[in-house]
Amino acid sequence: MREVAERAGVAISSVSRVLSGHPDVSEEMRNQVMAAVAELGYKPDLLAQGLRSRITKSVGFVTGDMSNPVFAQIVSGAEVTLREAGFSMLLTNSLVDPDLDRHNIELLEQRRADGLIILPVSETHEPTVAALAELTVPVVVVERDLPARVRASLVLSDHSRGMSAAVERLLELGHRRLALISGPALRPTRQRREAVEAVLAAHRIDPRSLIVRDGLFSPGHGARATRELLDLDDPPTALIAGSNQIMIGALKTISERGFELGRDLSFVGCDDIAIASLYSPPISVVERDLAAIGEAAARLLLTHVSDPETEPQEILLGTRYIDRASCGPVATAL
Amino acid sequence: MREVAERAGVAISSVSRVLSGHPDVSEEMRNQVMAAVAELGYKPDLLAQGLRSRITKSVGFVTGDMSNPVFAQIVSGAEVTLREAGFSMLLTNSLVDPDLDRHNIELLEQRRADGLIILPVSETHEPTVAALAELTVPVVVVERDLPARVRASLVLSDHSRGMSAAVERLLELGHRRLALISGPALRPTRQRREAVEAVLAAHRIDPRSLIVRDGLFSPGHGARATRELLDLDDPPTALIAGSNQIMIGALKTISERGFELGRDLSFVGCDDIAIASLYSPPISVVERDLAAIGEAAARLLLTHVSDPETEPQEILLGTRYIDRASCGPVATAL
Repeated sequence: MREVAERAGVAISSVSRVLSGHPDVSEEMRNQVMAAVAELGYKPDLLAQGLRSRITKSVGFVTGDMSNPVFAQIVSGAEVTLREAGFSMLLTNSLVDPDLDRHNIELLEQRRADGLIILPVSETHEPTVAALAELTVPVVVVERDLPARVRASLVLSDHSRGMSAAVERLLELGHRRLALISGPALRPTRQRREAVEAVLAAHRIDPRSLIVRDGLFSPGHGARATRELLDLDDPPTALIAGSNQIMIGALKTISERGFELGRDLSFVGCDDIAIASLYSPPISVVERDLAAIGEAAARLLLTHVSDPETEPQEILLGTRYIDRASCGPVATAL
Repeated sequence: MREVAERAGVAISSVSRVLSGHPDVSEEMRNQVMAAVAELGYKPDLLAQGLRSRITKSVGFVTGDMSNPVFAQIVSGAEVTLREAGFSMLLTNSLVDPDLDRHNIELLEQRRADGLIILPVSETHEPTVAALAELTVPVVVVERDLPARVRASLVLSDHSRGMSAAVERLLELGHRRLALISGPALRPTRQRREAVEAVLAAHRIDPRSLIVRDGLFSPGHGARATRELLDLDDPPTALIAGSNQIMIGALKTISERGFELGRDLSFVGCDDIAIASLYSPPISVVERDLAAIGEAAARLLLTHVSDPETEPQEILLGTRYIDRASCGPVATAL
């Protein structure tokens, strides 16, 4: 604007008035400014437009780990819905670092996103919670339980339902010694563990008999924990991997050991990624509709952007257990 | 700025002078403006800072399909390098639509990205090529051959090397009837096909004997093409899947048909995604170091951002054939 003002020989405030379509501008002033704009090759600046109209028709999406296909599919589901509404998406990747979540929230706010969808790395990281609580644009939180002072709409999965069905099936097959390779302390992880323990208790099996190994949503954690569990003096007869990345690592160890799933060990994973149905034998999983989660988050955010008075809402989507050959009858001791 | 000016009772140009640190500002004016800034809860705006300093310390990344794990890993590699240099990344997803590539290039330019890394959907889509040619910020193109008027640095893989080794291995195992399930008309696809044909020719096998099925980088194309190929009167004895998504679809059909790879059919995929080593038997692949591609693109872009006079460069990274049990001796007719 400064350059345009200098070239046109007018005040910066005059340039601002012309560009914002202010009615109080003479024809001569308009021509001078627009000639300078053309000479300088000045492009209409979406940001300046955004400052005027408040709406930039862009939405920010903060994800923790782009290399996790679950996140990528949620993102793609959201983007399709946003595009149909004429909105663009700006995405950031926090490399599983909660400090980058905070940084990315501020970055997207400063780039004038009309609202944010966030799948944060941590539910309790104070700088992230504070940044979300202070945001003036609407926020939709996906698959996370944040402190109440974050005024956001929520899109959540009912992880209990699918996981309960999985455990019912394992018990039906005779398994009593179960292990859960669990992720970080986040809502899906808590819900999965609570569901396993509740079904055990309902069948009068001590929930403390469940062996749990906590760690990251990573193949490394899945591989290590599976090695430890298989090396126990009294190893579990059924293994539940509490995320797709944990499942990939667990399957590495299982392949290395030459275990045949459904015979030597029963196995349930989370999320129906390609490997689950292509593994030999195919893997039972608790699945959720990832694209639908993204779509729901985008629709909710668009509602808040178009009407900032809308109260925060919560959408709960289902999960489903798919039974495949990786779950078989417990081997009877000879 | 308008609100601040009104609150402080000064001209917009005065607010601009204060916020930009202009020396020609009285102490009283500065205090008035900063008091209004504080009262209104006005936040330092990275964008306004960017307009002044020209550098926003953010880089845009335009990818065609976030749900493809190859893209996600290249993006993550780039992001690590950018973070270490203090840069943020804004990412867009073009949903395999070349028009969205053009839209996203313009969006990121308008959001003041200091430069762009792009993995475009198409090499020839005129609006995208025009948008890239007109960009004033530096561009690094990854794995694509764009027309020369796009003045960009390139980060490319030598797809010939790994694919040639794969075909040499198949010929050594006695295969003469090869099929290639190929992707869209892009550099990696062309290089893979040329490599297969060149090795065949070098072994005095007519390159026209290669059966090619072109299509998208998608599981659907891989599954359909594999069905067609296996249903031929004289089906190929070895199948090459020209991308990880094509491989996933091909493996679906192969599993459905109950084919045992390495015995009933030999198979080579591209990119060493988790499924390749976990499939039974493990799948031979042509691999590339995806994180290294992203890192190289980020480093190159940072060079151009810090010194706009740097000439465009080209970095060529290797590919490697990993031989696994999915390739076996051709079944001899009885």
